[in-house]
Amino acid sequence: MLYLVRMDVNLPHDMPATQADDIKAREKAYAQDLQRQGKWVHLYRVVGEYANYSVFDVESNDELHTLLSGLPLFPYMKIHVTPLARHPSSIR
Amino acid sequence: MLYLVRMDVNLPHDMPATQADDIKAREKAYAQDLQRQGKWVHLYRVVGEYANYSVFDVESNDELHTLLSGLPLFPYMKIHVTPLARHPSSIR
Amino acid sequence: MLYLVRMDVNLPHDMPATQADDIKAREKAYAQDLQRQGKWVHLYRVVGEYANYSVFDVESNDELHTLLSGLPLFPYMKIHVTPLARHPSSIR
Amino acid sequence: MLYLVRMDVNLPHDMPATQADDIKAREKAYAQDLQRQGKWVHLYRVVGEYANYSVFDVESNDELHTLLSGLPLFPYMKIHVTPLARHPSSIR
Amino acid sequence: MLYLVRMDVNLPHDMPATQADDIKAREKAYAQDLQRQGKWVHLYRVVGEYANYSVFDVESNDELHTLLSGLPLFPYMKIHVTPLARHPSSIR
Amino acid sequence: MLYLVRMDVNLPHDMPATQADDIKAREKAYAQDLQRQGKWVHLYRVVGEYANYSVFDVESNDELHTLLSGLPLFPYMKIHVTPLARHPSSIR
Amino acid sequence: MLYLVRMDVNLPHDMPATQADDIKAREKAYAQDLQRQGKWVHLYRVVGEYANYSVFDVESNDELHTLLSGLPLFPYMKIHVTPLARHPSSIR
Amino acid sequence: MLYLVRMDVNLPHDMPATQADDIKAREKAYAQDLQRQGKWVHLYRVVGEYANYSVFDVESNDELHTLLSGLPLFPYMKIHVTPLARHPSSIR
Amino acid sequence: MLYLVRMDVNLPHDMPATQADDIKAREKAYAQDLQRQGKWVHLYRVVGEYANYSVFDVESNDELHTLLSGLPLFPYMKIHVTPLARHPSSIR
Amino acid sequence: MLYLVRMDVNLPHDMPATQADDIKAREKAYAQDLQRQGKWVHLYRVVGEYANYSVFDVESNDELHTLLSGLPLFPYMKIHVTPLARHPSSIR
Repeated sequence: MLYLVRMDVNLPHDMPATQADDIKAREKAYAQDLQRQGKWVHLYRVVGEYANYSVFDVESNDELHTLLSGLPLFPYMKIHVTPLARHPSSIR
Repeated sequence: MLYLVRMDVNLPHDMPATQADDIKAREKAYAQDLQRQGKWVHLYRVVGEYANYSVFDVESNDELHTLLSGLPLFPYMKIHVTPLARHPSSIR
Repeated sequence: MLYLVRMDVNLPHDMPATQADDIKAREKAYAQDLQRQGKWVHLYRVVGEYANYSVFDVESNDELHTLLSGLPLFPYMKIHVTPLARHPSSIR
Repeated sequence: MLYLVRMDVNLPHDMPATQADDIKAREKAYAQDLQRQGKWVHLYRVVGEYANYSVFDVESNDELHTLLSGLPLFPYMKIHVTPLARHPSSIR
Repeated sequence: MLYLVRMDVNLPHDMPATQADDIKAREKAYAQDLQRQGKWVHLYRVVGEYANYSVFDVESNDELHTLLSGLPLFPYMKIHVTPLARHPSSIR
Repeated sequence: MLYLVRMDVNLPHDMPATQADDIKAREKAYAQDLQRQGKWVHLYRVVGEYANYSVFDVESNDELHTLLSGLPLFPYMKIHVTPLARHPSSIR
Repeated sequence: MLYLVRMDVNLPHDMPATQADDIKAREKAYAQDLQRQGKWVHLYRVVGEYANYSVFDVESNDELHTLLSGLPLFPYMKIHVTPLARHPSSIR
Repeated sequence: MLYLVRMDVNLPHDMPATQADDIKAREKAYAQDLQRQGKWVHLYRVVGEYANYSVFDVESNDELHTLLSGLPLFPYMKIHVTPLARHPSSIR
Repeated sequence: MLYLVRMDVNLPHDMPATQADDIKAREKAYAQDLQRQGKWVHLYRVVGEYANYSVFDVESNDELHTLLSGLPLFPYMKIHVTPLARHPSSIR
Repeated sequence: MLYLVRMDVNLPHDMPATQADDIKAREKAYAQDLQRQGKWVHLYRVVGEYANYSVFDVESNDELHTLLSGLPLFPYMKIHVTPLARHPSSIR
């Protein structure tokens, strides 16, 4: 089941660089692990912004919330989720 | 080069059904042809709305505008385009 | 799986009353059938507006889109869907 | 009398973890107590957000304000209330 | 129980003047009747707009919806309702 | 001459409680004094929010600005003023 | 007493030219008469839009509403009024 | 003196094709004439929309309004103007 | 050449009073000097807000930006500029 | 390939002046270098705001994101990108 997710990151300017680097490193590992599992199927950077559009493929709303709220950057992001359905003109 | 595109369709309520059906049939053929060419890489329905989120893979801004403005439903749609870049955490 | 859905109805003022009455009667039957099936679990009127907030319990995003796009009033409504998850403080 | 309430939580990033944990624990106890009393009838997590949609069943606007303004997280939330009425197509 | 209600009127430009006059006359009688009953306690014109802010004093959300949806201008208005509570600094 | 005023309060989370209490006490005294003078004719709490809708009856725009900018909470509020006129359907 | 007023004109595209011309001629005469009376003190065109920003100097909210609602273009305009006060740094 | 101008075109769906073609042909001639005069210095299509971003170089606000309000498509466009100044980091 | 300018002031709550007073005193002197020069032709307070609407009469966009960016309060203000043209119904 | 980019700068008020000056000096050098390379083709100040509208001419979405995210002011800016295409009425 697919969802489009937009994430906008806002790190506080006074966060120490080492803390920020640590969070970003954990975020990257977390994101790549979910991609390898086939749950985070697309991850695109929005040009010019510290933001991404992503597509998730999960079993349920609950699974998606668990994945998103576990993101190391979760406390510093604004997230918006749009549920997707099969489009009748899609050839897939 | 990737772009996220959202399209919201608003057909006038007084359009004759045969005209609407004809436009939709041509839209579907057009969309499937571009998908087969690999230019319209994802086509998702927004749940509960007469709208879609799509991902296009084209050579340039100009090519994307040519493809979108050629849509049979183009005069009846509100379209918003977001350019995408490679995300550093993407495993692709 | 639960979703909050807001529906705002906008019937054209020039729709003949008999046509409007027919659509509304079919909408009511459709809504009550889905309630009896346990899929449309709550249906609330927004005070002062020709609109409702509803909660649906369905198997998937696709099922929800099929149900919503089959509403007799679908061509005359603006619909917004919010996916819901279990809240950790809920006692249910 | 029913109301739909959306609550968005914004805890300051510099709040000490022990203080945040204490507020959240008290919030949970408060929420569960009101659920057991039948006043907070539904509590749903918004997928991907530190937010909830809730339905309250209370005697009056004043009672609802008293309950909401007593929430331990009240100073850190943006709350929006929508009054609900019985829908003529509801089977309840 | 008090509610603030804003109503914005949009009559179609092609409505015949006699029909518009009839609706407005019925609206006025309806509004004055509710004022005399003490349910529509304040009715103010928004300066420069075909709109009003009103305060209603009713028993319940359901009663308010019944009153508002019975307005002769209801099909031509955008209405927004804000529930009000007693303010601790009010001397009333 | 009547005006509808909406005030939304945002006290900084790091303001010492004694300072906040002092401001609120002065705000309450100020509001009650204006109510007794007949200038602040209605003061309603917005349900679920640290906000109010009020109606003022003053001689001029200048007098209203003087009263509002003198509020002890003025530096911490977002205020929006809507001028009101007599409504032709009002029975007052 | 001063007010800033923004007016945006939206004439229906199917209004006959003679009717539109008549309304515009009456609007111009009306506007110039109020300017000569000193009530409509400034009338500026917004560059690129069929809109104006104006300053009115009137006795009361009621007088302003009477003047604005009497505009021949009133049924075809969106109007927003902002009450103004003397600025402490103004040299007038 | 430079201005950024965004123009969004909305032709009524029921406008006869010959009338639309005539307006568009006149618009094109008008636009190209102003470009040759050096007044309309840039004209860009917004990808996916019937809209443009343009830069004008004119003597005054009044000249810009005269040029824009003379556009054959002016009655069918939403136009927004942003005045521009020299940027201190520009090498021009 | 005329421009409507709206300025909204947001001084940080933790700015020392002496610093704030100094900035405001310099702002006042600056504003009055420009008024005496005939460049800042109107300066109105927005009722209930720490904001003003002003009309400037300058030679060019560049001159206006130079004047506005030189305001002592410039780093603490949100400013929006609307270019104005002569209105055909103005009697001036 | 052209893009319109709007950048709004928000430097924290508590950033030391030397740090701010250093960032701005590096930003200016960076911007002028890209202008000399022909990639940052227009750079305009928005009148009255600490903001610019710019036109970039780059090979791809990815190149644009690399350039923008490398701006010394990037962590302190809100950036919005609009892809542009050739306009059929442009004489270039």
